[in-house]
Amino acid sequence: MSTALTIDFVTAKGGRTSVETEPGTSFLDVARAADIDVTATCGARGKCRGCRVKILKGAVPPPTIMDEVQLGPDEVHEGFRLACQTRVIADTEIMLAPPHAEGGHKILGSGKDRGQQAGIDMDSGVMKKFVTAAIPVDEHEQSSDIEEILTATGASKSGTLAPDLLRKLPGVLREKRGAVTVTTFNGDILDIEPGDTTEHKYGMAFDIGTTSIVGALIDLDSGEQLASVGDVNPQAVYGGDLMSRLAFAQFDLPALRKLRARAVQAVNDHIKEACEKAAVAPEHIYKVVIVGNTAMHHIFLGIDPTYVGLAPYAPSIRGAIEMPARDLLLKTIPNAKICMLPIVAGFVGADAMGAVLATRIFESEDFRVLVDIGTNGEVIMGRKGKLMACSAPAGPALEGAQIKHGMRGAIGAIEKVHIGEAVTCETIGGAPATGICGSGLIDAAASLLKAGVLLTSGRFRTRDDKSLPAALAARLLGSGGKSEFALVLAQESGNDTDITLTQEDIRQLQLAKGAIYSGVLMLQRIMKVPIDEIAELQLAGGFGNYINTESAVAIHLLPSIPLEKITYVGNAALMGAEIALISETERKRADVLAKEIEHVSLAAHPEFQDIFIEAMCFPEKKVDAHFAEAEA
Amino acid sequence: MSTALTIDFVTAKGGRTSVETEPGTSFLDVARAADIDVTATCGARGKCRGCRVKILKGAVPPPTIMDEVQLGPDEVHEGFRLACQTRVIADTEIMLAPPHAEGGHKILGSGKDRGQQAGIDMDSGVMKKFVTAAIPVDEHEQSSDIEEILTATGASKSGTLAPDLLRKLPGVLREKRGAVTVTTFNGDILDIEPGDTTEHKYGMAFDIGTTSIVGALIDLDSGEQLASVGDVNPQAVYGGDLMSRLAFAQFDLPALRKLRARAVQAVNDHIKEACEKAAVAPEHIYKVVIVGNTAMHHIFLGIDPTYVGLAPYAPSIRGAIEMPARDLLLKTIPNAKICMLPIVAGFVGADAMGAVLATRIFESEDFRVLVDIGTNGEVIMGRKGKLMACSAPAGPALEGAQIKHGMRGAIGAIEKVHIGEAVTCETIGGAPATGICGSGLIDAAASLLKAGVLLTSGRFRTRDDKSLPAALAARLLGSGGKSEFALVLAQESGNDTDITLTQEDIRQLQLAKGAIYSGVLMLQRIMKVPIDEIAELQLAGGFGNYINTESAVAIHLLPSIPLEKITYVGNAALMGAEIALISETERKRADVLAKEIEHVSLAAHPEFQDIFIEAMCFPEKKVDAHFAEAEA
Repeated sequence: MSTALTIDFVTAKGGRTSVETEPGTSFLDVARAADIDVTATCGARGKCRGCRVKILKGAVPPPTIMDEVQLGPDEVHEGFRLACQTRVIADTEIMLAPPHAEGGHKILGSGKDRGQQAGIDMDSGVMKKFVTAAIPVDEHEQSSDIEEILTATGASKSGTLAPDLLRKLPGVLREKRGAVTVTTFNGDILDIEPGDTTEHKYGMAFDIGTTSIVGALIDLDSGEQLASVGDVNPQAVYGGDLMSRLAFAQFDLPALRKLRARAVQAVNDHIKEACEKAAVAPEHIYKVVIVGNTAMHHIFLGIDPTYVGLAPYAPSIRGAIEMPARDLLLKTIPNAKICMLPIVAGFVGADAMGAVLATRIFESEDFRVLVDIGTNGEVIMGRKGKLMACSAPAGPALEGAQIKHGMRGAIGAIEKVHIGEAVTCETIGGAPATGICGSGLIDAAASLLKAGVLLTSGRFRTRDDKSLPAALAARLLGSGGKSEFALVLAQESGNDTDITLTQEDIRQLQLAKGAIYSGVLMLQRIMKVPIDEIAELQLAGGFGNYINTESAVAIHLLPSIPLEKITYVGNAALMGAEIALISETERKRADVLAKEIEHVSLAAHPEFQDIFIEAMCFPEKKVDAHFAEAEA
Repeated sequence: MSTALTIDFVTAKGGRTSVETEPGTSFLDVARAADIDVTATCGARGKCRGCRVKILKGAVPPPTIMDEVQLGPDEVHEGFRLACQTRVIADTEIMLAPPHAEGGHKILGSGKDRGQQAGIDMDSGVMKKFVTAAIPVDEHEQSSDIEEILTATGASKSGTLAPDLLRKLPGVLREKRGAVTVTTFNGDILDIEPGDTTEHKYGMAFDIGTTSIVGALIDLDSGEQLASVGDVNPQAVYGGDLMSRLAFAQFDLPALRKLRARAVQAVNDHIKEACEKAAVAPEHIYKVVIVGNTAMHHIFLGIDPTYVGLAPYAPSIRGAIEMPARDLLLKTIPNAKICMLPIVAGFVGADAMGAVLATRIFESEDFRVLVDIGTNGEVIMGRKGKLMACSAPAGPALEGAQIKHGMRGAIGAIEKVHIGEAVTCETIGGAPATGICGSGLIDAAASLLKAGVLLTSGRFRTRDDKSLPAALAARLLGSGGKSEFALVLAQESGNDTDITLTQEDIRQLQLAKGAIYSGVLMLQRIMKVPIDEIAELQLAGGFGNYINTESAVAIHLLPSIPLEKITYVGNAALMGAEIALISETERKRADVLAKEIEHVSLAAHPEFQDIFIEAMCFPEKKVDAHFAEAEA
């Protein structure tokens, strides 16, 4: 027989309810048995965020996939769980998260020291109104279907109606004897439907990244996320990284059309999938906010990105874009307006703008730095009233490309490397090692540096260097530019070949991490911000989640900042799109911010060479070369 | 040898230049030989109106087809000719028409006593600006292609750019090193082209009628008409007249789509043809103003016209429409805005609105009445500050349909009938008679009335009525409801059969003319306007040109108004579209007028039965029954 466990439900105001239950019961069932109200909009299927709770004391059950999807890494990390998905494993003290209808939806997650998070206005700009309009019956009356509908809604004019909307007016007005729901976006009529559909008001946010396209379906009334979707960007067949993608489209309009068609198709598919997941009719999606880097943004719009890929990397259009979905061939959502966030400049694209919105860096009293590590990384630094940004062309090394035994972060990829008396590699999924991924590469370099196998310059010590323990020296193969270090020996693993890091791999890593670090150093220098004045370094983007921050600092991919000041903020670009989706105030703020953020062109800056050469090197023991004087 | 002729050129200010010339010389060549400046924009090909002259004294040469096309029936009738097309045949005194660049283009023709005609502002709303924009070269500059272009034009924002325009931005900006022409319509950017294209700024006006679709290509700078196009409405295969067209589409969306596709195709074809005629690139057409009756208007937009055809005949939308050409599938003109004039109410459609604009009835100090005779006739009555309108369902009898020997106004159609001692019929083209057209029907009825063959009630006298001359009695065949009167006897014409008018034909005519006349009577009664207070009756529409107004009054198709007060104003609907094309002031005026014009629903009016029965009858000798008391 199982032992009864005690679950204490605590309210924000200090109330407490204790309930005894059996292990294995879901927290939702426990609460319901005790008559504690928990919102479970989706019917306890893990498809919404309504029932989330925070574990305050006691063992935190491992997150389910639905926790990951609905709550994101931040909240999961902080002990939030979906009550419907999580089963009691121990005596626990939990707090019910406030329902979204009250207090608003904290779409930002809740990184430490970001008190500004709460203040997002829920004003998506989409309004639905159910009215009963008169159907013209009197021949003497001078009226028309649309006028009767406008009169009923109290609106004075309709704006320009889409052709398809015009076409269905007579039928819609008469289908339910004048009972119609009128949907507007910032006053323009998007749709008129028979009957009362005011409950259905949805939007989607998308981040069209070079590597993947991810999206979220959001209830515009509650801000609740109803579904999340995502997959690799199907353009990848025409070039895995940004520059090869651009090269494919440059001066080649049919190629551009192919890229565009794939992105449009993917977004259409994701919309369909999200709508199916959440049982939402695609006609009830009225607003879609899209972010993406400048190249993806231009390609999605069908703008020739040739000049985006050539110095001075000028976009064709930077301002926010608002367009009917039909104009962008998003035919799954006939009634939606597509809003693209503005581009700051060059490669600091709409995705970076989204990250700025999400991280609220523009509201910070202290200096913060936001780093998005990717093939084209972005660095944004500043505080309230002063923001600067640059893009850092890191290249694909951190994604495992152009590395001899490099691979994506999949099962069998080495992701952690420990070098003590022996060399120990951890792989994703604990499977036998088949290669090394980006985070493994960083960790390996850091360990090799610490063990003295790698010099500050990035060169391997020679095999016959007497300062090296014999076990490590034995793993140094080749010599000079052809040196390599065996992480996994064939004789140990039973593989055909050793898994090694070559001197050339290290050089690729140095170029990549040097680019990102140069961005940070450059903005520090221009803004005159010593390292200890930076209150927080926010890591954004999918990659940031996997890297060992200690190792990243140790190799100077990131600056020498105390580890507790580094936070992972998840896909901040998508989060920013979601914020702009639920809040026109925030979407308009992005327009203003995009113009205020000062863009620094790294490569064209006179000090760049100097900074870059330094940034490519690995750091001397624990001393940040640039701000050594500023440190205690 | 030919005798020299004297041509006197007179200017508006009284100047006079006499030139001697040979017969057969074109007036243009005569003027040029005498160094008299005549504008001939099209290169003396009869393709523009630039060189038109008015013959003041001397024989007026017969008009050429180009005179008809460029000048229209009004100006041709008043002695205007194109100097390039017209050859000297006698001593002549002529006046050069003012060039369009000065004084504005008198698009209205010049009917008598319409002094208000001159005041159309040339403000099409379309602007072209040639600028040289900077091409982004500096990586530190935060700019984009569109921003550079906007800066160069001095504009602060672009409005929403069409997707295709966005897409071509990078290429267009760089093709001629930043030299671009920016075209706007009311401030919104329609197109950006490389190089200087400011000279090319065109628009089109269309009247989509039930029977025919006609259009004109206009230079938006000068107001000059560069080409006119037209043909039967290809929807006719699905129903020749309005009600059968509507019946075809009612409750049948695929049928509606067919109708729409045909109209859209026809307009696309006409645009192509007009552009070819005038050597204009379709991309340089920026504004298209379309009028049409309510059914044609709705069908062209793809709006289900079911309820337009059912009482209370409410349109789905009455207000002015402005839409990108692409949204209406007018793919020939990618850069154009389509503007449809507003509908007044029911069947008083955008075409009637065009006619109101063209005839300036809203500026008149005196009462005027505008009558458009068609299967669905419209009557608009009023003066400055007070306008009323009604539509009169005349049916197709006046187009020769549902008449035993009826036919369209083509070669061989009887168009005039004189009944004295004998019966004389004139046919179109003087060819042997094969049937009777609408104008012939009116003339025949008037003659039969005058000759006493037809009674006021519309009944034929009987064959044995002794009051009839024997020659006429002999032509009365059949009896009672089956009576008919032979206009052309088989034995005279050598045809197989007689061409007759049947009692039933007369009844159809009575229904048709009764509808139109009821409209006039009803508005007179509601507005309390006795017949002698009507200063002018303006006949609009294609049909109006052909009818004998004396006969029309004699049978009370038109009211008993002195013939000199009746003017034919041509296709006033198209003319109104042209006015709205060249003048945004006028287009906006139409919006205001459409709301101000009071619509009277004939059939639903309590007095209608009474008025209609009276209106169906033929008049007693010279007395207007309704306003007998008002007449001297």
